[in-house]
Amino acid sequence: MSESADIIMFERGDYVSFANCGLPYHIGGDIESRDALLLQTPQSFKQRFNVDVRVRSNVEAINPLAQTVTVRNLDSNECYQQPYDKLLLSPGAKSIAPAIDGLSNNRTFTLRTLPDMDQIQTLIDRDQPSHATVLGGGFIGLEAAEALRQRGIDVALVELGPQVMANVDAEMASPLHQELADHGVDLRLATALMSVEDNGDSLALKLSNGASLTTELLILATGVKPETELAEQAGIALGANGGIKVNSRMETSITNIFAAGDAVEHVDLVTGQPALIPLAGPANRQGRIAADNMLGSDKHYKATQGTSVCRVFDLTIAATGSSEKALLKAKRKYEKIYVHPMNHAGYFPGATAVSLKLLFEPNDGVILGAQAVGKDGVDKRIDVIAMAIRAKLTVFDLEEQELCYAPPYGSAKDVVNLAGFVAANYLRGESDICQVDDVLAPNPQQVVLDVRNPPELINTGAIEGAVNIPLDSLRERLNELDRDKEYLVSCMVGLRAHVATRLLINSGFKAKNMTGGFKTYQMVLAAKAVTS
Amino acid sequence: MSESADIIMFERGDYVSFANCGLPYHIGGDIESRDALLLQTPQSFKQRFNVDVRVRSNVEAINPLAQTVTVRNLDSNECYQQPYDKLLLSPGAKSIAPAIDGLSNNRTFTLRTLPDMDQIQTLIDRDQPSHATVLGGGFIGLEAAEALRQRGIDVALVELGPQVMANVDAEMASPLHQELADHGVDLRLATALMSVEDNGDSLALKLSNGASLTTELLILATGVKPETELAEQAGIALGANGGIKVNSRMETSITNIFAAGDAVEHVDLVTGQPALIPLAGPANRQGRIAADNMLGSDKHYKATQGTSVCRVFDLTIAATGSSEKALLKAKRKYEKIYVHPMNHAGYFPGATAVSLKLLFEPNDGVILGAQAVGKDGVDKRIDVIAMAIRAKLTVFDLEEQELCYAPPYGSAKDVVNLAGFVAANYLRGESDICQVDDVLAPNPQQVVLDVRNPPELINTGAIEGAVNIPLDSLRERLNELDRDKEYLVSCMVGLRAHVATRLLINSGFKAKNMTGGFKTYQMVLAAKAVTS
Ligand SMILES: Cc1cc2nc3c(=O)[nH]c(=O)nc-3n(C[C@H](O)[C@H](O)[C@H](O)COP(=O)(O)OP(=O)(O)OC[C@H]3O[C@@H](n4cnc5c(N)ncnc54)[C@H](O)[C@@H]3O)c2cc1C
Ligand SMILES: Cc1cc2nc3c(=O)[nH]c(=O)nc-3n(C[C@H](O)[C@H](O)[C@H](O)COP(=O)(O)OP(=O)(O)OC[C@H]3O[C@@H](n4cnc5c(N)ncnc54)[C@H](O)[C@@H]3O)c2cc1C
Ligand SMILES: CC(C)(COP(=O)(O)OP(=O)(O)OC[C@H]1O[C@@H](n2cnc3c(N)ncnc32)[C@H](O)[C@@H]1OP(=O)(O)O)[C@@H](O)C(=O)NCCC(=O)NCCS
Ligand SMILES: CC(C)(COP(=O)(O)OP(=O)(O)OC[C@H]1O[C@@H](n2cnc3c(N)ncnc32)[C@H](O)[C@@H]1OP(=O)(O)O)[C@@H](O)C(=O)NCCC(=O)NCCS
Repeated sequence: MSESADIIMFERGDYVSFANCGLPYHIGGDIESRDALLLQTPQSFKQRFNVDVRVRSNVEAINPLAQTVTVRNLDSNECYQQPYDKLLLSPGAKSIAPAIDGLSNNRTFTLRTLPDMDQIQTLIDRDQPSHATVLGGGFIGLEAAEALRQRGIDVALVELGPQVMANVDAEMASPLHQELADHGVDLRLATALMSVEDNGDSLALKLSNGASLTTELLILATGVKPETELAEQAGIALGANGGIKVNSRMETSITNIFAAGDAVEHVDLVTGQPALIPLAGPANRQGRIAADNMLGSDKHYKATQGTSVCRVFDLTIAATGSSEKALLKAKRKYEKIYVHPMNHAGYFPGATAVSLKLLFEPNDGVILGAQAVGKDGVDKRIDVIAMAIRAKLTVFDLEEQELCYAPPYGSAKDVVNLAGFVAANYLRGESDICQVDDVLAPNPQQVVLDVRNPPELINTGAIEGAVNIPLDSLRERLNELDRDKEYLVSCMVGLRAHVATRLLINSGFKAKNMTGGFKTYQMVLAAKAVTS
Repeated sequence: MSESADIIMFERGDYVSFANCGLPYHIGGDIESRDALLLQTPQSFKQRFNVDVRVRSNVEAINPLAQTVTVRNLDSNECYQQPYDKLLLSPGAKSIAPAIDGLSNNRTFTLRTLPDMDQIQTLIDRDQPSHATVLGGGFIGLEAAEALRQRGIDVALVELGPQVMANVDAEMASPLHQELADHGVDLRLATALMSVEDNGDSLALKLSNGASLTTELLILATGVKPETELAEQAGIALGANGGIKVNSRMETSITNIFAAGDAVEHVDLVTGQPALIPLAGPANRQGRIAADNMLGSDKHYKATQGTSVCRVFDLTIAATGSSEKALLKAKRKYEKIYVHPMNHAGYFPGATAVSLKLLFEPNDGVILGAQAVGKDGVDKRIDVIAMAIRAKLTVFDLEEQELCYAPPYGSAKDVVNLAGFVAANYLRGESDICQVDDVLAPNPQQVVLDVRNPPELINTGAIEGAVNIPLDSLRERLNELDRDKEYLVSCMVGLRAHVATRLLINSGFKAKNMTGGFKTYQMVLAAKAVTS
């Protein structure tokens, strides 16, 4: 933006512009060259952008009155004052380690920086460990577990909560649990690590359920929190969640000091509430806006919607906007539907299902959030819905959206359209829905009706207490039904139950479609099984 | 929607609910089973939906006053009158054959229906042809050419226009020409078929450039036009482009007669003009709306944006909204930029470039259209932009859009963001751009400046008449430049030229970035080479 500005960048570590997001993939071997993770060097920054990059330089204090920072050169161990006109704080976040005895040992690491990665690599190369443990099932823990499995190491994944990937709802995470197990990950959900004992060539881990694990490598992936010490010491205001508070111009509470990235609190696009959303896309865009404003522009960062994606072996999970959990917490009204259509035309080889959960406003249909899991095409659908959420569109807009269709890519009615159809049908009162929880505890006036074919029940399982009448004989067997009852109708994914529900309603019965069918039922039950 | 309505469906062919879009993929062998193309049968429609499907029943006339249709049973050859309360016309489109002598022979086919496909398959199985010719390079022609290559047949593709895939702009189609050639397709652009002579075991084709071809199979893929004979005879109004005219409720000019699909004219979302857009997604959604309205709903189909995608061997090409050609024709003001970023993090293996062209309003930045070509992730970006166009968003919205990012899926600054950055930088006056055409014909006050490194010029080619100063030495070599000139700056994709342009502007020079860099330059030149 400016040739005349003197720009200095301080970094306490050895590297700038490194791709943290690539760290697990280098451990796993997908990214072969370590150098590939270094996108820019101090030299290239100097040459191309005339930026004076000072690595191994720890900023120890900010002195807002003097408009200086105190910097320690970590090589000479000397301190100096560096004056500034404008200051950008982007210290990022730091890994949180749980308060457990015995974590300080040379087999336990976090995974945030290149040196972290190097240490893990060194241990693996040196010891050829046969067993490693990952603590925490967020995206970094999942990526780490996969990377270790790719290196042929047995992996235990210990997670305190009842699910991995806490930013999605439990039932949507449950296919990941199966996937992890299928790839040999020893998954311990709803389990805390209690203590660690260093036995030299291994660690003895004690778990909350009384079990113990002998492991040679322990990776802590229990989340991050904003690096705010410097800011706090300088008297910069923090927000409700403990991140640096900024306005939409990325200005902190102190004049001439800006902040961006994992260290700051974002406004959540859907709830309007402050939130910590430590992701690279927002960090990059906030940095760009802050820089422009420091040079006199007036640009605004609006809000973060938390669009995120994670590869878990052959599955992809992605989400955007609010989860159901988040909406419950924010006391927002919502409705939800599930669909499980194919990622592309079913008649084209290689089609796989995308399981999608859509959350929306019950009154006007405004989309609040979406989560999807499947083998292929998951990120695409979430990106499309992310755009719709940003534009404050409704489920009715998804219904009519025109997306790329040719057999290898999608369907004439795409996953996104179908989610729109189902939600819009419900909101227009054309097809009432119920949830798995309703089917699990029907009231005396309700009957659960499964319209799948008998072989399907045998092959994939039946719903306890459900009456079975296959859709294609329903019209002839209406006389078996009771007009005083309400039918909670289920099939495999919700399509046949929709047709059955319409048929029943049009024939004078009361009926609701259990949204997402037996597939959702299984996902919900699997999630419930963890805690029960 | 209704159990009480009597629903009859007439189809002159043998099949209903077949997947036309799958026809080329069955010929090519991707879709092995012919049955996979039959999604529903008359029996399944009857059983599930209580619809009376009458195949081999040609509707010969509509009698609006009597509210009947005249139907000929093609087996008994008898006619009968069928009364209706509401009538839906969805006769689709028919293949246009060019007015050429000799097309009636048993080696020449269109590809619209299952019987068409069967005939082509039969000929291939029987004759094992070594050479086939496809006439027309639209998506059906391209898919047919690929299918025939997959069967090991030599293929000539003859196209009247200077490019294949006429719905995108010529420079965006040019990578397809290379891809076709690389896969052994003998591509004859800007070439007409003049005559066909049947020699029994082969056809002799005469081309407009004097060349001739001996071929054993000729597939006509020269476009479709709406099936409107029935409608015209009944006095139903047609639109400006010759399709059936409908309102947003899908009603024709005659009460109680609705129409949907390839036979009708759509409103183009971007230009607001009537247009023929024969695609399966719009057809499916229109049918759904028409059906609901016939049963008393009041639903509206808004507009079609022409989102489309085609696989051409290892490339994908996709588009949404208006092309530059279409905007020129509609006399709409527009601006355009090009970017060529990677489909996912460059440091993650397998990254490939997505070449994207974005068209937008010069005043307010409203997105008008987008086209993309590449190996992977093309459909995703076009789908995201399709959603943005539908919501009437601007390039500034693309700039801040939050999309799925993890190394295997995207980048912290996704392709879509980057396109937004470049367009928004231009509109805000932060980075002026110029086009390849400007660089091809600079005025005397302009100097073309290439900021790539010398080895790149040797390896990929130089821009004629350009001065070469690598970006990383530009700052030291500013004294070689002239403040009275305007520099048209180019690099490989536009990134380094952007940095150079900013550097020059901030140092008091006049400069513009040639959008899309040398990659776009090559695409434009390749497109121009066809016609020159
Ligand atoms: C293993 C891993 C995988 C990830 N994968 C993804 C992903 O797939 N998708 C995604 O969106 N996000 C991912 N992230 C998150 C993403 O990397 C962060 O959101 C992003 O890096 C934040 O950028 P930042 O500049 O705010 O902070 P950082 O990248 O953390 O940079 C902050 C820098 O400031 C330095 N620093 C801090 N304090 C001082 C001081 N006092 N003096 C000098 N220097 C200081 C630190 O050393 C650090 O280098 C991942 C993160 C990790 C660790
Ligand atoms: C080879 C091929 C590939 C394609 N690929 C794609 C693709 O990848 N993506 C995409 O979006 N679109 C694609 N399309 C286009 C898509 O198939 C059409 O847009 C869609 O089928 C239109 O549906 P429709 O119901 O309007 O017409 P049609 O599917 O053509 O159906 C009309 C039916 O009406 C019958 N009919 C007509 N007149 C009468 C009469 N008088 N009496 C009785 N019956 C009558 C016809 O026999 C026909 O079966 C492709 C088309 C073809 C041919
Ligand atoms: C790699 C890195 C240095 C790139 O930063 P950058 O140079 O600002 O980003 P880009 O290369 O994408 O773009 C630079 C500029 O060129 C512009 N540009 C890029 N491609 C362009 C093109 N084809 N035409 C015109 N302009 C272009 C962009 O708009 C941007 O300019 P702007 O901000 O003025 O709009 C930075 O992202 C980084 O350090 N990343 C590593 C850390 C990280 O992101 N980690 C978390 C994820 S692993
Ligand atoms: C295959 C075909 C018969 C399917 O038509 P369909 O039964 O109307 O379509 P679907 O199966 O997608 O959905 C049917 C209904 O079930 C609903 N539905 C689908 N899945 C559902 C789910 N999981 N939960 C609730 N409802 C669901 C849909 O919303 C739709 O109902 P609505 O219109 O009342 O909203 C029809 O698309 C067809 O004939 N296609 C072949 C021709 C073709 O498209 N050719 C061109 C491309 S090759």
